[in-house]
Amino acid sequence: MKISIIGLGLIGGSIALDLKEVGSYEIFGYDNSPDHLDQALAMSIIDAPGNAQSLKEADVVVLAIPVNAALREVSDLLDTIGENTLLLDVGSTKTLICDKVRDHRNRRNFLATHPIAGTEFSGPSAAIKGLFAGKTNIVCEVEKTAFKLQERAMEIFRHLGMRIRYMDPKAHDKHIAYVSHLSHISSFMLGKTVIEKEKNERDIFDMAGSGFESTVRLAKSSPDMWTPIFEHNRENVLETLEGYIENLRHFMELLKDENYKAIYQEMDNTNRIKDILKGITINAI
Amino acid sequence: MKISIIGLGLIGGSIALDLKEVGSYEIFGYDNSPDHLDQALAMSIIDAPGNAQSLKEADVVVLAIPVNAALREVSDLLDTIGENTLLLDVGSTKTLICDKVRDHRNRRNFLATHPIAGTEFSGPSAAIKGLFAGKTNIVCEVEKTAFKLQERAMEIFRHLGMRIRYMDPKAHDKHIAYVSHLSHISSFMLGKTVIEKEKNERDIFDMAGSGFESTVRLAKSSPDMWTPIFEHNRENVLETLEGYIENLRHFMELLKDENYKAIYQEMDNTNRIKDILKGITINAI
Repeated sequence: MKISIIGLGLIGGSIALDLKEVGSYEIFGYDNSPDHLDQALAMSIIDAPGNAQSLKEADVVVLAIPVNAALREVSDLLDTIGENTLLLDVGSTKTLICDKVRDHRNRRNFLATHPIAGTEFSGPSAAIKGLFAGKTNIVCEVEKTAFKLQERAMEIFRHLGMRIRYMDPKAHDKHIAYVSHLSHISSFMLGKTVIEKEKNERDIFDMAGSGFESTVRLAKSSPDMWTPIFEHNRENVLETLEGYIENLRHFMELLKDENYKAIYQEMDNTNRIKDILKGITINAI
Repeated sequence: MKISIIGLGLIGGSIALDLKEVGSYEIFGYDNSPDHLDQALAMSIIDAPGNAQSLKEADVVVLAIPVNAALREVSDLLDTIGENTLLLDVGSTKTLICDKVRDHRNRRNFLATHPIAGTEFSGPSAAIKGLFAGKTNIVCEVEKTAFKLQERAMEIFRHLGMRIRYMDPKAHDKHIAYVSHLSHISSFMLGKTVIEKEKNERDIFDMAGSGFESTVRLAKSSPDMWTPIFEHNRENVLETLEGYIENLRHFMELLKDENYKAIYQEMDNTNRIKDILKGITINAI
């Protein structure tokens, strides 16, 4: 089976690595950055650089570029690919891209998914084997994709070891704002707050324990990837931010009032995140 | 050498485990909870339950209980211990306890430290070997401790594998508010915000990736330990919270204004947390 992967970063590169293990996939790679393309070849992440021909002949084209670029390219790609090619989108927001292709004549060649896996690193060198194993893949509007092409996608997800969950694009974007996008902002702003305050960086280094490292990890993420995500999911993200800031302000008021009983209660109530999260496998690097 | 450990939780228990490996320490344990004491004995974390006699005869008494309890007990303990006993405090705030013992006639028997290590778990079952290896231990007002007792403490820290850094209690509390206490609040409030919104917990579980798990990890921490820390370090924590909320509000305004260039810049500037944190060993479970 011929796979063309557009975007050889963490996600595209990791998909390529897992599919190469299977042995039955021939993988062509595309990347705007000649450096990334060279790296991907040198690391044997892909079999060959792709061209217009390999795009047309692909059984599956994986679209693994920042969501704004994907939104810009998706219609042209649907015009270009072969009539039996699946265009598989793996971006982090789903509403805008599903809206964009809604009335495209080749809509049945398109499948919108979001494999929920990643690390804070980017580029081909960030690609790792087994990134997706045991993780959830959200599939949107599955009924709008040709059944044979759905099957082809499912075979890929089986090889990646992913659990499938079906969801409409709006619900996806709303939920993911809470469990992913907000985490990134909280982490970026935590990093910013500490950097601003601690002019002497040596102090941060010496006193930061694993707790800080854990909460600030996502602040290492790529602005190229995340700026368009926040743009695409602006309204949901604003809602989560309002709720988050309100909760922080409430906590601050309790501390100002020295209401330690209520502060205890806040933490005790939130401790049940333990049970909620139990079972999530942490494979982050 | 005889060690009495008061408080057999994550920190006290992990100190005991490492010192038992050395072979030359006899370890007595104390805990308000009979269950914890039984567990510590059953797990061979300690050699025997302590009593008034073992406290008096100890070479070192380790005070590893929540900071409010430590503050309450420290004077009585300094009255009670032998004249050559070191009372070694390992709590997460340093100003109040150093103030409390400042004029105690046995001040020279006391050493204030903060081994910066931990996980989100608590109780004897959370104790792990090697928790402190390579981590930083902040030592406060070292000059106020008898030299021979300083040496005894340093021997213990060597066995734990810790790097020592000297700092005055006020500087400690100010810095630690940024790199530890704020992280805990940001994490607790993140957990609260998501739980509040996502009534259907199945959605959280299915969509939460390792990024969310990482940022919300500290929300599993014990309110018994953390409420008194926030109480002790109230003013510094309030300052960090104000800065953090202000940064979040600024980010929200940029998103409201669709100023994506500035949002990109915010993240790009904060990315240098990568270099700042490089070298921190993550040993968290």
